[in-house]
Amino acid sequence: MTLPEYRLRLPGWIDDLVPDDVVLPDVDDRMRFVVSLARRNVAEDTGGPFGAAIFERDSGRLVAPGVNRVVPARSATAHAEIVAISLAGQVKGTFDLSAGTATELVTSVEPCAMCLGAVPWSGVAAVVCGARDEDARAVGFDEGDKPADWIDSLAARGIDVVRDVMRADAAAVLQDYAAAGGIIYNGKSMPDA
Amino acid sequence: MTLPEYRLRLPGWIDDLVPDDVVLPDVDDRMRFVVSLARRNVAEDTGGPFGAAIFERDSGRLVAPGVNRVVPARSATAHAEIVAISLAGQVKGTFDLSAGTATELVTSVEPCAMCLGAVPWSGVAAVVCGARDEDARAVGFDEGDKPADWIDSLAARGIDVVRDVMRADAAAVLQDYAAAGGIIYNGKSMPDA
Repeated sequence: MTLPEYRLRLPGWIDDLVPDDVVLPDVDDRMRFVVSLARRNVAEDTGGPFGAAIFERDSGRLVAPGVNRVVPARSATAHAEIVAISLAGQVKGTFDLSAGTATELVTSVEPCAMCLGAVPWSGVAAVVCGARDEDARAVGFDEGDKPADWIDSLAARGIDVVRDVMRADAAAVLQDYAAAGGIIYNGKSMPDA
Repeated sequence: MTLPEYRLRLPGWIDDLVPDDVVLPDVDDRMRFVVSLARRNVAEDTGGPFGAAIFERDSGRLVAPGVNRVVPARSATAHAEIVAISLAGQVKGTFDLSAGTATELVTSVEPCAMCLGAVPWSGVAAVVCGARDEDARAVGFDEGDKPADWIDSLAARGIDVVRDVMRADAAAVLQDYAAAGGIIYNGKSMPDA
């Protein structure tokens, strides 16, 4: 059986937009960066309204960005966080994003159940979130069922969670996407927007 | 910034092992197939002791297989289920695995928190599991925190769950892997085996 590859590539505009060496010591600047990715992803029609990135935690050096690619990549798994984690693994040369230097996941929206589940496996030391889960649900995305105490659950593994960083700006990307008729790519069993 | 691609390919032995058209009407045969992928994946040293596949639910026609590729693919997200879902999307030409014909995910071990979260997004109508979550934890894999009522949660979305199909055979692959010193690729924050 000859099987297709799954090639996960970022849109070409990211290569153009992002300089070779991005260093953002301030957490607000990191969030501003991933929200800008989310917004541009919608404007360019290259995926859903979500952006994420893996940064070196202390220095703020960008390891890898990610944007939602579910529809163009034809994969339900191509959420911004999964993309950023997978690409960061290619940059670091290992699945373990704690290797060498501690890293953190910065995401324009709190992770859905899938992306939340990816966090401990990835080795990141922290998750920094913009919009809340309910902001994504409000425009129709079914984020799945997460443990009610998911923040404590990550804390118990030594993973810090920071919420509501530029929440309004991040949520506005979701709202603008929905208002413009963007695809709400829930699975068949999930509610439509 | 020039970013690497993330190319998710199955090991070459799968192309050789799997005929062009696989049709397995019986659920035990579907599980036997994914358990054989898990076992071979370990024997060939091409990833962890997990196999999965997307099948057309009624006919039993194979859409796409998957095996764990975390270590060789350098991605914490390359679990067998994520691989199968992503490749099935390439075969079907859409992220929505319910398109055209209902499909199901057959997995040698109950999905971890990440893969469980992927299930509703994928559009599969059912999940068929071999070994239990606790069989994976018993050899050291930290499967993450899932909602206690995850089966009800999927059922509420119209997704059926079938458990314990050839559980002993599927669990034996895990035990043999661990006994042979296979890598337990938990994130840094997760407990080692």
